Amino acid sequence: MTNSPYAAYIAFAHELADAAAAVTIPQFRNLKDVDNKLAGGDFDPVTIADRGAEQAIRDLIDTHHPSHAILGEEFGEKPGQDGETLQWVLDPIDGTRQFISGMPTWGTLIALNDGGVPKLGMLDQPFTGERFYACDGMGAFLRHQNQLGKLSTRPCARLSEATISTTSPECFKSDELALWEKAAQSAKLARYGGDCYGYAMVAAGHMDAVIESGLSAYDIQALIPLVEEAGGIVTSWQGGDAAQGGSALACGDKALHAELVVLLG
Amino acid sequence: MTNSPYAAYIAFAHELADAAAAVTIPQFRNLKDVDNKLAGGDFDPVTIADRGAEQAIRDLIDTHHPSHAILGEEFGEKPGQDGETLQWVLDPIDGTRQFISGMPTWGTLIALNDGGVPKLGMLDQPFTGERFYACDGMGAFLRHQNQLGKLSTRPCARLSEATISTTSPECFKSDELALWEKAAQSAKLARYGGDCYGYAMVAAGHMDAVIESGLSAYDIQALIPLVEEAGGIVTSWQGGDAAQGGSALACGDKALHAELVVLLG
Repeated sequence: MTNSPYAAYIAFAHELADAAAAVTIPQFRNLKDVDNKLAGGDFDPVTIADRGAEQAIRDLIDTHHPSHAILGEEFGEKPGQDGETLQWVLDPIDGTRQFISGMPTWGTLIALNDGGVPKLGMLDQPFTGERFYACDGMGAFLRHQNQLGKLSTRPCARLSEATISTTSPECFKSDELALWEKAAQSAKLARYGGDCYGYAMVAAGHMDAVIESGLSAYDIQALIPLVEEAGGIVTSWQGGDAAQGGSALACGDKALHAELVVLLG
Repeated sequence: MTNSPYAAYIAFAHELADAAAAVTIPQFRNLKDVDNKLAGGDFDPVTIADRGAEQAIRDLIDTHHPSHAILGEEFGEKPGQDGETLQWVLDPIDGTRQFISGMPTWGTLIALNDGGVPKLGMLDQPFTGERFYACDGMGAFLRHQNQLGKLSTRPCARLSEATISTTSPECFKSDELALWEKAAQSAKLARYGGDCYGYAMVAAGHMDAVIESGLSAYDIQALIPLVEEAGGIVTSWQGGDAAQGGSALACGDKALHAELVVLLG
């Protein structure tokens, strides 16, 4: 467990997730107010749990690694210092809509990238007591309560045998929705409501693909090492880099990925 | 806690849920095989966890209350004896698709009805350690790990302020889907992937409505007391009895229910 230059940050990422959970868990199912980030008719909820958790993480990074760059959903970008190439990318609550609806499938996402390439990723779900994480070249893991296990994607080479997942049909533009529906009709099983949790289920070998679009970098960077260190692959729908956001196609099996890039790309 | 003639069965329902969990939890995320109940192209999964959990529950009922009638998803109907009016209605795993996909939003549903009217309902989610239950006239409760709390729906009189939920757009026939989409577009927030868990979130005051169709009696009977004892209402889309299956509209606030019956009915 020490063959990656990023391994030194795993324990620190656990500290960050612990700090976020100390903010989110007391607020989960206990919120007084939900704000709307958007003017006009649309609703993009944000809570004091999102803001407080990100602040708690940023405070720890500022204290212990002040030269590191930060990009977070709620408080934006802080440049690195002295030519630092490491950047923390944070979504304090991925799936805020699930969070405010009481559902246990949201997660705190913490990524560390080097020159924009994600090297360490963590998805913490403190209500279920699950922490999924991975580090460059070292594999992917699930700590559930006090048990630690290694994660592997499962083989599934064909869409007709696959369980695929997305968050909501409303996340897609209309041409994208038609492509998702085509994939869903060809798949063995299509599921909704996953948010970040769907990617963890691909990494753990319980689902075969997640198909999403309209993502930001902080929605996906933690999940790329998680799926890839478990044996899978994450790209855009066209097969390109997904780390800066946009569309994402995460597959447990590279043959299924090839089939889906043809369908979606 | 002793003013209902059905209160005597609450402790027994806990025993039933414990017996089911002893079967489902070792199989969750650990399945070797998933069978298909349907011939042809469609996929309706069933596992040894569904069958084993229902058998474990039926064995306990047969032993302790041999005169009671039983209706279960996997093993069908057993008539009552000697004019018995009590019937247990069982869905050992509601949300088998979530179960086989590793998602924690399935549940074991246990209902007791008297002459077809649900009087006691329990939704057990053993992976998260949550057990939601309610008994006629006594209120609705959540036992989470070792803590017990009383459940109340929240006020939300208007669809434009409501969070509504369904399992999957694929559960609706096309005319029903158009009605769901109309409701979703008018709602503040529409969520997917709920299965039985969505009803529990209505009972607990984190969501405002669940809208589903194509249900069987065993999909809904446990959830009617849960939502109604918490202050809500469950009917068909037309406002009629939902206990025998078909469509279901569960609302935390009766004014919201009235608005949705007009939209859906």
